[in-house]
Amino acid sequence: MALSDSSHVLIQELKSALGEAHVVTDVAAALPFTREWRGRLEGRALCVVSPADTSQVQEVVRLCAASRVPMTVQGGNTGLMGGQVPDETGQEVVISLKRMSRIRAQDSVGGTLTVEAGVVLADAQAAAQEMGFEVPLSLASEGSCTMGGVLSTNAGGTLTLAYGNAKAMVLGLEVVLADGRLWQGLKSLRKDNMGYDLKQLFLGSEGTLGIITAASLALVPAFPAKAVAFVGVQDAGAALALLQRTREAAIGVVKACEFIPDLGLELLTQHMDWTRRPLETQSPYYVLLEVDGHDNAALEAGLDGVLMRALEDGLIADGMRAQSLEQARLLWRMRHALSEVQKMEGASIKHDISVPLDVLPAFLKEAEAACLKAVPQCRPLPFGHVGDGNIHFNISQPPHMQGADFLALRPVLEDVVHGLVKHYGGSLAAEHGVGRFKRDLLLETLDPVALSLMRSLKQALDPHGLLNPHRVI
Amino acid sequence: MALSDSSHVLIQELKSALGEAHVVTDVAAALPFTREWRGRLEGRALCVVSPADTSQVQEVVRLCAASRVPMTVQGGNTGLMGGQVPDETGQEVVISLKRMSRIRAQDSVGGTLTVEAGVVLADAQAAAQEMGFEVPLSLASEGSCTMGGVLSTNAGGTLTLAYGNAKAMVLGLEVVLADGRLWQGLKSLRKDNMGYDLKQLFLGSEGTLGIITAASLALVPAFPAKAVAFVGVQDAGAALALLQRTREAAIGVVKACEFIPDLGLELLTQHMDWTRRPLETQSPYYVLLEVDGHDNAALEAGLDGVLMRALEDGLIADGMRAQSLEQARLLWRMRHALSEVQKMEGASIKHDISVPLDVLPAFLKEAEAACLKAVPQCRPLPFGHVGDGNIHFNISQPPHMQGADFLALRPVLEDVVHGLVKHYGGSLAAEHGVGRFKRDLLLETLDPVALSLMRSLKQALDPHGLLNPHRVI
Repeated sequence: MALSDSSHVLIQELKSALGEAHVVTDVAAALPFTREWRGRLEGRALCVVSPADTSQVQEVVRLCAASRVPMTVQGGNTGLMGGQVPDETGQEVVISLKRMSRIRAQDSVGGTLTVEAGVVLADAQAAAQEMGFEVPLSLASEGSCTMGGVLSTNAGGTLTLAYGNAKAMVLGLEVVLADGRLWQGLKSLRKDNMGYDLKQLFLGSEGTLGIITAASLALVPAFPAKAVAFVGVQDAGAALALLQRTREAAIGVVKACEFIPDLGLELLTQHMDWTRRPLETQSPYYVLLEVDGHDNAALEAGLDGVLMRALEDGLIADGMRAQSLEQARLLWRMRHALSEVQKMEGASIKHDISVPLDVLPAFLKEAEAACLKAVPQCRPLPFGHVGDGNIHFNISQPPHMQGADFLALRPVLEDVVHGLVKHYGGSLAAEHGVGRFKRDLLLETLDPVALSLMRSLKQALDPHGLLNPHRVI
Repeated sequence: MALSDSSHVLIQELKSALGEAHVVTDVAAALPFTREWRGRLEGRALCVVSPADTSQVQEVVRLCAASRVPMTVQGGNTGLMGGQVPDETGQEVVISLKRMSRIRAQDSVGGTLTVEAGVVLADAQAAAQEMGFEVPLSLASEGSCTMGGVLSTNAGGTLTLAYGNAKAMVLGLEVVLADGRLWQGLKSLRKDNMGYDLKQLFLGSEGTLGIITAASLALVPAFPAKAVAFVGVQDAGAALALLQRTREAAIGVVKACEFIPDLGLELLTQHMDWTRRPLETQSPYYVLLEVDGHDNAALEAGLDGVLMRALEDGLIADGMRAQSLEQARLLWRMRHALSEVQKMEGASIKHDISVPLDVLPAFLKEAEAACLKAVPQCRPLPFGHVGDGNIHFNISQPPHMQGADFLALRPVLEDVVHGLVKHYGGSLAAEHGVGRFKRDLLLETLDPVALSLMRSLKQALDPHGLLNPHRVI
């Protein structure tokens, strides 16, 4: 591809600003940044730049903005919605923030941690642990996703139940704006009403309104003890009732309440030899429940009491409590293997959705039936964060169908599932964001007033549309 | 005051829309809405309108916008920053939302409550209690402040420590925009990343970007048991260390950690005959600590253990645990009487500030010394929410000075206190908002980039500057 003169000039300017080594133009060398990690998208970049600090990010943005060159911001390249890779035009500059991986401050008195955008979530977790605290965010990609990524997408995960989404932990942000100016909002205050809460503009807007370069986080106490149970239930209603009882028992912090359908267990035991069914009885669904606290004996006794009463009352069908940390880890590993095992079973069609908790049981029942009606013998495998209403409503292909034939039915099944989510007042993008893949869906689905408000914000903050164009809005 | 023809027309249109009874033009009848509740401001209104529902709010805004008439939005008229009353021009239409006091939905499964803007906080609390939950917000004016008011100002209070500011509980909003359009964002989802998080624009922006007409709230579990302690400490550092120990002990939810200086106790016992010193010993400061949970005996034993160890380690000087609910209530009543008793002691100059927790002890020490140096014999009485860094840094007049003479020193003392807050990276408007009173301070204090972002938002959402003009920004 021939580069225009102005592109040549920009690349030279970027090299002067960052050093030759940190401006990659070679297509092969750029591949880790231009290809979506699962290979679902492969774009091309004008170049991939890796600024070392905030002032270099500002300089990159200023140079790109001056040439009206669009930018793609990237953290760990772990996103599921394609927002982190450039398009096919080769016109976008990819800004990788991975070199900005310093932990700037740790405050054990206030329980806060200040991290740069490129800090890997697992490194932030380790830093918090050293301080006797915990980062209130845990998700499958935590070993490689970066703080800038999880905050700009407002990631969810298993701890939302206890602590809210990623944005809930943010006390302050440092952000490079679309014209290269710096908004220095890196405060560590628990209460601040000095004007509009500007950080909210950048949390969850997927880099389309500004580039988060650092964040100050409110940590939560780390608990030394935990109790984990695996319980068989008839439906999501029973799972939620069990969650409520566990909370009311006030035996500790309910850290997770994850939902697994029987098909999930079935596939795990078929495909992965390290798995086995935790219960001797079979139920339509299971719940993985974790409660953390200070004292193992008290937690175990408390959780046993909750399970015993639930069993007596017929709320649950069966249940076991992990007898060792090793057993608890195995249960969690099975939960985390659900995505992987679905892949081993063939093609699947996925929906990252949420609905209000009170209608979740009805939604699941109707959605499973409607999918089966639309595509006989398809196999709904709804799993995930039942406690916060966020279900990964995945559907595995019928056993004897060709994968490609099943995937051709995606529009049919999406219509069924999305239609019911909308009917029940839910969200079509619960914790994975919008990115490229759900942008059209968003434009079709949101009401005109919401869309016009979002467009006003984009216009106000990025009038030339240079930051992550064609994502979200 | 003579009304222009166009004003006459507008009032007639408003009367047609809402009914005569709900458009008040009589100055005396309008007084409860045009006078700040403490009498610190008295404005005039073109009229005071009381819409019954959201569509009437839309109609009022459309009519005012068409005539380019500015609006003041009002809830319970309990604000401390003067934002809720009209200016002196008599040109503003006051929109009182008090008639919109319906609880629209209660969901005991999901633990959510949907309220209209005019619902009094105490009524929302009662509705939550009926459901077995609690509204995670408690403040002095809860008997008369409204949900629209506390959400639009992002109010704080004693529960911030446990649950965050008012905005943290909001799952969805319904908002009338500056041109009368309705943004219907009244969802009850725990996870939703379908585009920008628009509700954040309206939470804490004090009605300058849109009018909140209803909100969906995430409730927290109500706990049947509580333990309350009153502890003497040397300084704020010891208070925070005690808080951390209490949290680490994981005996329950730490609901409050309030700070009271010895002068506060002194004035209480002097002026209010129902008070007495809870401890026999005297300390520079005291902490009121509350932990809630499921079982009174366990909580009491747990808290006693924490206090005992803190005493042994010399972290605290003395301490007692309330032996009855009545005693606990008395301790809380004393805490809440601190503002009142300061008034009885003469003039005082107040600062609603917050600083990061790790510098709070140093800030308090320096600020007290600097105030005494600037105004000898003035009496700093810093009290409040030490656990979240929000201190009401109030200063009572020297004993033998005239109140007016002391108040004339306000600029001197404000400079001292605000200078130190800024030095320590704190906020000059922690939980009471900006309103009219702190607008100049905000304009002087915020950095130009933050101000320009705020102005862009105002321009994007209220281009004619009709909503709560001259507040915040």
